[in-house]
Amino acid sequence: MEDLYVIKIGGNIIDDESVLAGFLNKFAGIPEKKILVHGGGKLATRMAENMNIPQQLVDGRRVTDAETLKVVTMVYAGYINKNITACLQSLQCNAIGICGADGNSILAHKRIRSGTDYGFAGDIDSVNTSWLTSLLGQGIAIVMAPITHDGKNQLLNTNADSIAQEIARAMSQSFNVRLVYSFEKAGVLLDVEDEKSVIRSITPAYYQELKAAKKIFAGMIPKLDNAFAAVSQGVKKVIIGKGEDLGNLLNGKSGTTISHE
Amino acid sequence: MEDLYVIKIGGNIIDDESVLAGFLNKFAGIPEKKILVHGGGKLATRMAENMNIPQQLVDGRRVTDAETLKVVTMVYAGYINKNITACLQSLQCNAIGICGADGNSILAHKRIRSGTDYGFAGDIDSVNTSWLTSLLGQGIAIVMAPITHDGKNQLLNTNADSIAQEIARAMSQSFNVRLVYSFEKAGVLLDVEDEKSVIRSITPAYYQELKAAKKIFAGMIPKLDNAFAAVSQGVKKVIIGKGEDLGNLLNGKSGTTISHE
Repeated sequence: MEDLYVIKIGGNIIDDESVLAGFLNKFAGIPEKKILVHGGGKLATRMAENMNIPQQLVDGRRVTDAETLKVVTMVYAGYINKNITACLQSLQCNAIGICGADGNSILAHKRIRSGTDYGFAGDIDSVNTSWLTSLLGQGIAIVMAPITHDGKNQLLNTNADSIAQEIARAMSQSFNVRLVYSFEKAGVLLDVEDEKSVIRSITPAYYQELKAAKKIFAGMIPKLDNAFAAVSQGVKKVIIGKGEDLGNLLNGKSGTTISHE
Repeated sequence: MEDLYVIKIGGNIIDDESVLAGFLNKFAGIPEKKILVHGGGKLATRMAENMNIPQQLVDGRRVTDAETLKVVTMVYAGYINKNITACLQSLQCNAIGICGADGNSILAHKRIRSGTDYGFAGDIDSVNTSWLTSLLGQGIAIVMAPITHDGKNQLLNTNADSIAQEIARAMSQSFNVRLVYSFEKAGVLLDVEDEKSVIRSITPAYYQELKAAKKIFAGMIPKLDNAFAAVSQGVKKVIIGKGEDLGNLLNGKSGTTISHE
């Protein structure tokens, strides 16, 4: 099977123009097939403030009301997505910026859990792998914005980590997928205060050991649970580390690698 | 050669949610290959006002400064483009929303004329017909936002009429192209006060006659000059009329048809 990289970046890359440019330069240079999933960053929050859209929280989660959905659609699928695409083109990397509605890439449904309404937030149902495969087959890098749709004319704000994971999982039926989560830290740390304490590699057995010894920072556990879920569902490796250091993350010289072996 | 429709809609369709929904319903039903080019509408102007971005004019033309470019990228390539795409998907019309940077669809350069700087406004250099043809060949309708790029990491605000014309012209090498300009009037009128005075068909000879007799409203002349330029460059027909009446425009029951015969 051919290799495919699915790489997710968030605010710490997107919000800094020169960091983003450096990252995209490295991304453009990856010779293998590749999909970039980007989150939002601070611009959407600033825009919502400028437009006096009040931010609602339910159980500590931000609610995507109709006005917020408008802002995130504009900022994520418009501003950020098109600027990344134009930058990749200038680096001779043919790219296409899309969201889940385009080519019906990602179908989702409006999240309703235990009767709580989270507004226009999407939980993913399916990834259109044949369409994404066809784009990749034409030598095009895919830039995915964290907006999906429900197939019934509703766009949905969707977590970029989940999009990356679902794409990686679905595409692993036809590709050797490596899923890279760009992160503000150099990887999973044994000592959260020490950037040099990166755990280079975690297997399921070692993960149980680390958890039992309470050596894993609580905030990392959901991320790692998701990473192990991905590798158990066919993703070859999950790599967590600084996107700024993309080259070393991909060649295994930095970051934390999560795999079955 | 296969038929292809290139249909341009502007603010009078986009700004009214129910008119847009009605139009898209008809667009989705076109069985032939199709490209929708959309303009901006009032939302970008309202957003720029909300964000206190001053509107500069040079020789009566709005200047696209860096902040305005940000707004139009968000609104045109984000909000409007993705909402149209999600709506088409809900109508079982597989569609992809793109701008000129995506797949390197449309290359342009920053407009500088007689030393005047119009800001980030783009004049089109080329259309990537093989890429657009490949999308259409997969049964996908293309939804094009009026944003292009220069290949050097600069997005450019670009007139939607020009985009529609350049796409129609370039694609006419491989398709029988009909270019439809949706318009606020029912077509080219003999009497600008009378919606019933639509001229059903204009040939080059008749156009000269109408111009000599000063029967063409001055504001229509640049539009018609462009339409005749398009038909002289390979576009089979240009149809001007109300997008709301799309079915009748396409079957020749309404609007004005510009052609060589």
